[in-house]
Amino acid sequence: MKDRFLKALRCEETDQTPVWIMRQAGRYLPEYRNARVRAGSFLTLCKTPELATEVTLMPIKRFPLDAAILFSDILTIPDAMGMGLNFREGIGPTFSKKLENLSDFKRLPIPNPEEELRYVMDTIRLLKRELGSMPLVGFSGSPWTLACYMLEGGGSKDFNHVRKKLFSNPTEMRYLLEKLAKAVAHYLEAQIDAGVDAIMIFDSWAGILSDSCFKQFSLKYLKDICGKLKEKNVPKIVFAKGGGLWLDSLAQLEINGLGLDWSIDLARARAIVGDKIALQGNLDPAVMLTDPQTVRLETKKVLESIGNRKGYIFNLGHGITPEVDPRHVEVLVDTVHSYR
Amino acid sequence: MKDRFLKALRCEETDQTPVWIMRQAGRYLPEYRNARVRAGSFLTLCKTPELATEVTLMPIKRFPLDAAILFSDILTIPDAMGMGLNFREGIGPTFSKKLENLSDFKRLPIPNPEEELRYVMDTIRLLKRELGSMPLVGFSGSPWTLACYMLEGGGSKDFNHVRKKLFSNPTEMRYLLEKLAKAVAHYLEAQIDAGVDAIMIFDSWAGILSDSCFKQFSLKYLKDICGKLKEKNVPKIVFAKGGGLWLDSLAQLEINGLGLDWSIDLARARAIVGDKIALQGNLDPAVMLTDPQTVRLETKKVLESIGNRKGYIFNLGHGITPEVDPRHVEVLVDTVHSYR
Repeated sequence: MKDRFLKALRCEETDQTPVWIMRQAGRYLPEYRNARVRAGSFLTLCKTPELATEVTLMPIKRFPLDAAILFSDILTIPDAMGMGLNFREGIGPTFSKKLENLSDFKRLPIPNPEEELRYVMDTIRLLKRELGSMPLVGFSGSPWTLACYMLEGGGSKDFNHVRKKLFSNPTEMRYLLEKLAKAVAHYLEAQIDAGVDAIMIFDSWAGILSDSCFKQFSLKYLKDICGKLKEKNVPKIVFAKGGGLWLDSLAQLEINGLGLDWSIDLARARAIVGDKIALQGNLDPAVMLTDPQTVRLETKKVLESIGNRKGYIFNLGHGITPEVDPRHVEVLVDTVHSYR
Repeated sequence: MKDRFLKALRCEETDQTPVWIMRQAGRYLPEYRNARVRAGSFLTLCKTPELATEVTLMPIKRFPLDAAILFSDILTIPDAMGMGLNFREGIGPTFSKKLENLSDFKRLPIPNPEEELRYVMDTIRLLKRELGSMPLVGFSGSPWTLACYMLEGGGSKDFNHVRKKLFSNPTEMRYLLEKLAKAVAHYLEAQIDAGVDAIMIFDSWAGILSDSCFKQFSLKYLKDICGKLKEKNVPKIVFAKGGGLWLDSLAQLEINGLGLDWSIDLARARAIVGDKIALQGNLDPAVMLTDPQTVRLETKKVLESIGNRKGYIFNLGHGITPEVDPRHVEVLVDTVHSYR
């Protein structure tokens, strides 16, 4: 049944528990690795709608998953703002520019999704033709997470530079985050107009913030975006990695689902957020590195832990890693679907 | 008053709020950088009691801090087990050996603290003579955190290898963790016998665990250690970085204080742990990178956030970083002591 994922997001009963996997179209798949070699780079895959479509469909063809997720990256917006995104083997994302101050922030254009990000919209339109009734998830990085990479010029162990700036110049940071919130809202609106069936916002670096900073510099802008997307009748999921302490606040957003990393027990999360919001997660991705028997056992433990599975979508607590044996995904999906 | 820190750990009233700083004898101090150059390496500083003593005293001479912390490293135990600890510039700790399986775990000796770790005990004895009534904090890494480094052969971004092993071979991991718990207990007992006034256990990698794994593979061994140290009449502090979701469980340990990273609001932490356990923390270390005015403002905000300051010790939420201007520490200590 192709509507399990969307039904679960509306907290309706489903025949089986829906399951998809963050980064399901990724390096653990040999066909993906081949496509990447042929394309020459990860960004070429993202930016060529035919290739991005092909890659998005790879896990769907292999496994009976309940949702497809657009093959793209959380950093498409800063790239479209002219920052020059690159991925270097073993290093991760880097920008050719690094933001420093307010005049840099002011110079950033808000991208027109049908122009600078047209490749994403074209991919969505292609995918909708291919997927039939299989739901497609669109996504973006959150303003805070985008700002982290934009101010550090790429990834970082602790993002000290951007954390410092929250304290030394909160006004400038608010200016930047507000602009990013507008850009993210436009981008997600355009994804919805192009046809995605659900959207997900990744706040990958929520967990490096203090309680007060999370509320001021991340949650506030998530709220703005969800408010702006209110009229679009498409379910919204927020995933704040390391944000287990803020589930009560996150549950106040105008969203349908919360993604959970593996640090929180699902029953506890359910008790905190109530039964109006779907939960999605949260198997430790390290389990996927073990063996079929352990994958089955640990998958069952996660399914047991939530109790009532209404409004629940199985996923990992973070993206699947490149070293995983694809047969373990088969075991995982089968275990979820056959669990009663 | 030299007894502020110990009084606060007993949840007694103090004239001023006590303050010390994790990694207070560190690279942000020019005199420390000189000593390190002279010694040739970080490990020589740790392993030469006269030098470790000199370095421990450096921040005490500069600032009116309320406690000294032994200059050492959380990885002295695996080094004493024969794993060959090294620190490489820009890389962090590495071991010359890497543990793989049960036979490796079985071969590990439990160090005799007065032999293989005698340099630590000698440093403590020297320090006690120098410090007078100033309290000295001894410490160790937690079994889980030691295991993380020992199985990866050093630091890691996500410790995938050790997390995998928790699932694929929990029995072997329990064997290792039990051995490490014994070693940590012996080590801390010896530190207490040598004269430290309080001990602190650093579970630096608690935050990468699932709820169930944290309870099985970290908390359990913290409990064993605290149980074994029960007869020693010296206050105990546990710091589980990223463990904000488990404060209720941590508060059940036989401890006097909990160290907190900056992700949790202090008033909320107080509400969870009750008023029998002292709290220590939790300014975001990134604040120390800003300017004197911001340091003062943000320090005051932390002091305000806890409400009643009985049973409270000011500290950062993690170690102070090398780029900090030492004058900011002066501002911080003054702000804490003059706050009413």
